[in-house]
Amino acid sequence: MQIEPPYALFLGDAPDQLAAKTADGIAAWRPDWCLGQIRLPDCKADLKIAELTVEEAAAKGAKTLIVGVVNRGGIIGGAWLATILKAMDLGMDVAAGLHQRLADVPEIAAHAKKLGRKIFDVRHPPQHFAVASGKPRSGHRLLAVGTDCSVGKMYTALALEKEMLARGMKADFRATGQTGIFIAGGGVSVDAVVADFISGAVEWLTPANEADHWDVVEGQGSLFHASYAGVSLGLLHGAQPDALVLCHDPVRDHMRGLPDYRPPNIKPCMEMNLACARVVNPRAQFVGICLNTSAMAADAAAVLKADLAKTFGLPCVDPLKDGVGAVVDRLAVL
Amino acid sequence: MQIEPPYALFLGDAPDQLAAKTADGIAAWRPDWCLGQIRLPDCKADLKIAELTVEEAAAKGAKTLIVGVVNRGGIIGGAWLATILKAMDLGMDVAAGLHQRLADVPEIAAHAKKLGRKIFDVRHPPQHFAVASGKPRSGHRLLAVGTDCSVGKMYTALALEKEMLARGMKADFRATGQTGIFIAGGGVSVDAVVADFISGAVEWLTPANEADHWDVVEGQGSLFHASYAGVSLGLLHGAQPDALVLCHDPVRDHMRGLPDYRPPNIKPCMEMNLACARVVNPRAQFVGICLNTSAMAADAAAVLKADLAKTFGLPCVDPLKDGVGAVVDRLAVL
Repeated sequence: MQIEPPYALFLGDAPDQLAAKTADGIAAWRPDWCLGQIRLPDCKADLKIAELTVEEAAAKGAKTLIVGVVNRGGIIGGAWLATILKAMDLGMDVAAGLHQRLADVPEIAAHAKKLGRKIFDVRHPPQHFAVASGKPRSGHRLLAVGTDCSVGKMYTALALEKEMLARGMKADFRATGQTGIFIAGGGVSVDAVVADFISGAVEWLTPANEADHWDVVEGQGSLFHASYAGVSLGLLHGAQPDALVLCHDPVRDHMRGLPDYRPPNIKPCMEMNLACARVVNPRAQFVGICLNTSAMAADAAAVLKADLAKTFGLPCVDPLKDGVGAVVDRLAVL
Repeated sequence: MQIEPPYALFLGDAPDQLAAKTADGIAAWRPDWCLGQIRLPDCKADLKIAELTVEEAAAKGAKTLIVGVVNRGGIIGGAWLATILKAMDLGMDVAAGLHQRLADVPEIAAHAKKLGRKIFDVRHPPQHFAVASGKPRSGHRLLAVGTDCSVGKMYTALALEKEMLARGMKADFRATGQTGIFIAGGGVSVDAVVADFISGAVEWLTPANEADHWDVVEGQGSLFHASYAGVSLGLLHGAQPDALVLCHDPVRDHMRGLPDYRPPNIKPCMEMNLACARVVNPRAQFVGICLNTSAMAADAAAVLKADLAKTFGLPCVDPLKDGVGAVVDRLAVL
């Protein structure tokens, strides 16, 4: 699976900005790949990039229409169909990360077949994976783990890749969720893999590489999340990380989707991740803490970061405000 | 999914006794449900139960033909087809736990449809599960966990159910793997569930119950198994156990399927399981250690059991030799 850029980002009839979160992430991290946005008349989301019709996107050379919007239930909206079919008419492949597959919509499947276009349903891994071998492999791997879902693991991993590449290091962001897959042009939606093969899928995603190469792996969920911890542990084992970064949202008062669960403290969360990681890689260690401080006052955030840095002897940054240079510095001494 | 007994156990052309392990387990734990074995001429396995033709099984009232044999690749053998179709002709449903689905063999699917017979592919959960809620629920749950795969978790859980029922306690064995599902007549093959729904599937399998009822849940894999730990953690969280039993094979020198991995020591394995279990149930505790001492001399086994019992302050037994009464005693004081 390799999704070909450049992209046209289709926002459909997104009822609000959050519904276009996927497209937002792609535009933020791969601006060069994004020719513009295509919106239906009642779309309430706006990426503040070039406004295109599907014809204009095709004329500009778009290779893939990305359905960068979600709706209730993850169903492919009837209002979207005309744009999707038109994009294929004009030469584009189509990619989506919804629960419902593009390939399961008869008109889309038939049209793709007739025209020879590719359909990417990135939530549904197209290949079968082997059971994980647990064998050591060459190259380094860094994994962003979290105290909870949606605490900035993907953004942290992408910021790390960007910083590493800027320094001339060999690095590849490895995507494990839908938005990440569009940003990387490929990857595996690990939460959609059959349970027996979670770790095997991640071993496939992060194969042996040059000795000085880093795979920067997007984490999912949290070992402390009562719904998704199995995914997180399988991912941790499959990634066999040398370096771990803990991602945390300091103002969250309950686990995402679980009103009765408080997020874990940072210390036990790091200890649990480390104990599990060392089952497959005895050299695993934390190299930094990344906070999402967007909801905190600047002085409170500064105090917290200094406090955590001192407590754990690790750089503690907000990737979007401070950059991740201090974390990357740590990789040099591993 | 409720597989209807009594069963006829079909061993096909099993090349050795191990290939009929599934049928072996069913005959051992549900002898009353098993009318006999049906074997092809070159079958090398023998359950030492009544030898039947498929016609004799039908005449005795068999409701379901259980394909209790595996072959390389988990494919439904051509030599088996005649027996399977004949069983359906004679009124039986058919159940199998192979990778390949009975329902994907055109002759079998067509025959079942024509005759109105049920097909159970227990490795492939037929229903969709919800994401786990993590909410506390009434009733007690016990989970058998392990240092490795295939260390006696199913046998331990079944021995516990049997002992509890013999004492007049309310208990149900809850199956999470193929053989267990045939023994229980239902369950979920958790390793075949989509990763996002592992814990949700186990919550479904072990729902709220009477306050003095115990679900005795079959564990899978190990938190220390580099291939399957994600399944084990999702199962642990979904089961939300009050009581844990650690299952261990003292003579194993490497993790199953992973020649370079040594099994964990008992102490860190218990600590890790407890730390993870307490994320969803702060009252979780170990109530016993169950060893498979079949490969040990009796005196060495006795020394080891006494040593572990003292070290951990828990009953330590070989379920098949000592029974599990000492473990069940512990449940009364939880």
